Amino acid sequence: MPFPVPGLPARVTIHEVGPRDGLQNEKTTVPTGVKAEFVHRLAAAGLTTVEATSFVHPSWVPQLADAEELYPLLGDLPGVRLPVLVPNEKGLERATALGARSIAVFGSATETFARRNLNRTVDESLAMFEPVIGRAKADGIRVRGYLSMCFGDPWEGPVPLARVVRVARRLHELGCDELSLGDTIGTATPGHVRALLDRLDEEGVPVSVLAVHFHDTYGQALANTLAALERGITTVDASAGGLGGCPYARSATGNLATEDLVWMLQGLGIETGVDLGLLAATSSWMAEKLGRPSPSRTVRALSPKE
Amino acid sequence: MPFPVPGLPARVTIHEVGPRDGLQNEKTTVPTGVKAEFVHRLAAAGLTTVEATSFVHPSWVPQLADAEELYPLLGDLPGVRLPVLVPNEKGLERATALGARSIAVFGSATETFARRNLNRTVDESLAMFEPVIGRAKADGIRVRGYLSMCFGDPWEGPVPLARVVRVARRLHELGCDELSLGDTIGTATPGHVRALLDRLDEEGVPVSVLAVHFHDTYGQALANTLAALERGITTVDASAGGLGGCPYARSATGNLATEDLVWMLQGLGIETGVDLGLLAATSSWMAEKLGRPSPSRTVRALSPKE
Repeated sequence: MPFPVPGLPARVTIHEVGPRDGLQNEKTTVPTGVKAEFVHRLAAAGLTTVEATSFVHPSWVPQLADAEELYPLLGDLPGVRLPVLVPNEKGLERATALGARSIAVFGSATETFARRNLNRTVDESLAMFEPVIGRAKADGIRVRGYLSMCFGDPWEGPVPLARVVRVARRLHELGCDELSLGDTIGTATPGHVRALLDRLDEEGVPVSVLAVHFHDTYGQALANTLAALERGITTVDASAGGLGGCPYARSATGNLATEDLVWMLQGLGIETGVDLGLLAATSSWMAEKLGRPSPSRTVRALSPKE
Repeated sequence: MPFPVPGLPARVTIHEVGPRDGLQNEKTTVPTGVKAEFVHRLAAAGLTTVEATSFVHPSWVPQLADAEELYPLLGDLPGVRLPVLVPNEKGLERATALGARSIAVFGSATETFARRNLNRTVDESLAMFEPVIGRAKADGIRVRGYLSMCFGDPWEGPVPLARVVRVARRLHELGCDELSLGDTIGTATPGHVRALLDRLDEEGVPVSVLAVHFHDTYGQALANTLAALERGITTVDASAGGLGGCPYARSATGNLATEDLVWMLQGLGIETGVDLGLLAATSSWMAEKLGRPSPSRTVRALSPKE
């Protein structure tokens, strides 16, 4: 029996990032056919947005170097968006040549991460995204903008709200349909989430275009999600089975597990369209392929094995 | 820099349960001297309430069968409460003979768990506690009442709010100074927490005597804690390093990790008096003694090793 909380949204869209953000950060390389089956099983479990892969240069992210082979295997899944990450115009061309209708660009709120991840300043990376977003929008393609390091940065420490606002406003002005605020190193706490969302709202970036993307490095992801829902967020990023962080490594930077999120949303009576049993079974299956248990507590609790 | 949230308490008391609830559920038996050092290190890290052990019959909980040897080793720790669990008058006598000034009784909101854990109905167990609480109070001893299975029960399913209220009221009337509401199987979600606290308040059990005790079986413990803080709760149970649940087992029923809790409270600017570095080092040390990594994400993230 659900226990709704007044003021929370009636429905949340889960932006499933397991096949892209999850697998990209796993040490084990997964065969292309298994990736395709993973996306199909996630869609069958009721997820309506499944970020499928990344059209970055294959040498940057070897785990996703098979994007060209994978994307055609996905086929047309009615009612399911399959966004792909593109870093630049070349990536956009590769993705749209295969029929992609939804893309994402990957920006940074901090200079250090922009330099390390994109080899550019923040402004240079925005300049790189401008034609990508422009061309995509002209073709009717949906664009998501990732904003990483919105709370803490491993080199710079706490990130000032004003810096996040500046990049968010710019990506919004450039035409992004959605902005995903990333707590890339997982240090955020609920008051910080609330403060950033309030500031963005004051500065003209409405909550309706925002998504949140939390990592569970310090176990804060679900509490932060609750704080975001209280502020009107209705799109939440999560990774099936918590893919993307090894549960045993110090450097565990796993995404919020989709199953832990769905458990909370179900309990709150918030509609997601997801069948938790099918989803957890999919994550257990993928954990077997990766040769280790899922870091998701809900997946382990629901697992029929042992 | 902390980001406070209006309406949350300025200070939270952490009721540390690692040495009792944590070690009681670990497979490895820890030497008595190590347990004493554990309690001393927890106190040195700033925890002011450390539940030290249990005076149940040794055959019931073999891991804590050394209560008589352990308690005198703890000595007098100024400003630190060292409650011990006592099941009945015999346990109370054993504990007070050693000088214990703070005890806890362990009740159940459900009939099935009362029968399985105490071999009694709920009313029979309350009758058993009545003289324990009465004698303790007459001696000026502080009494905490645990109320397990307040949200879900593995045999009975969801637990009606009215059932929890009935047992909570009775324990309150019997003289318990504090009631700890346990989500023993970890199925609760934030709206359920809020609904139970609201109902207890309506029925005359004030939030000022309540503590919350969440398990992270489905990853919900910290989000539930946030919901409880929003309802005025100022005492939160947690287990150093998440002791009490193996991170790899399906049946992981680990307590909320004290470090994950402290990370959130620090971020919210809520005072706890705890030094997170000392605490995490203590949990890493105990994880070594137990021969496995800590299930606390914060402990792993802060660990200098690997």
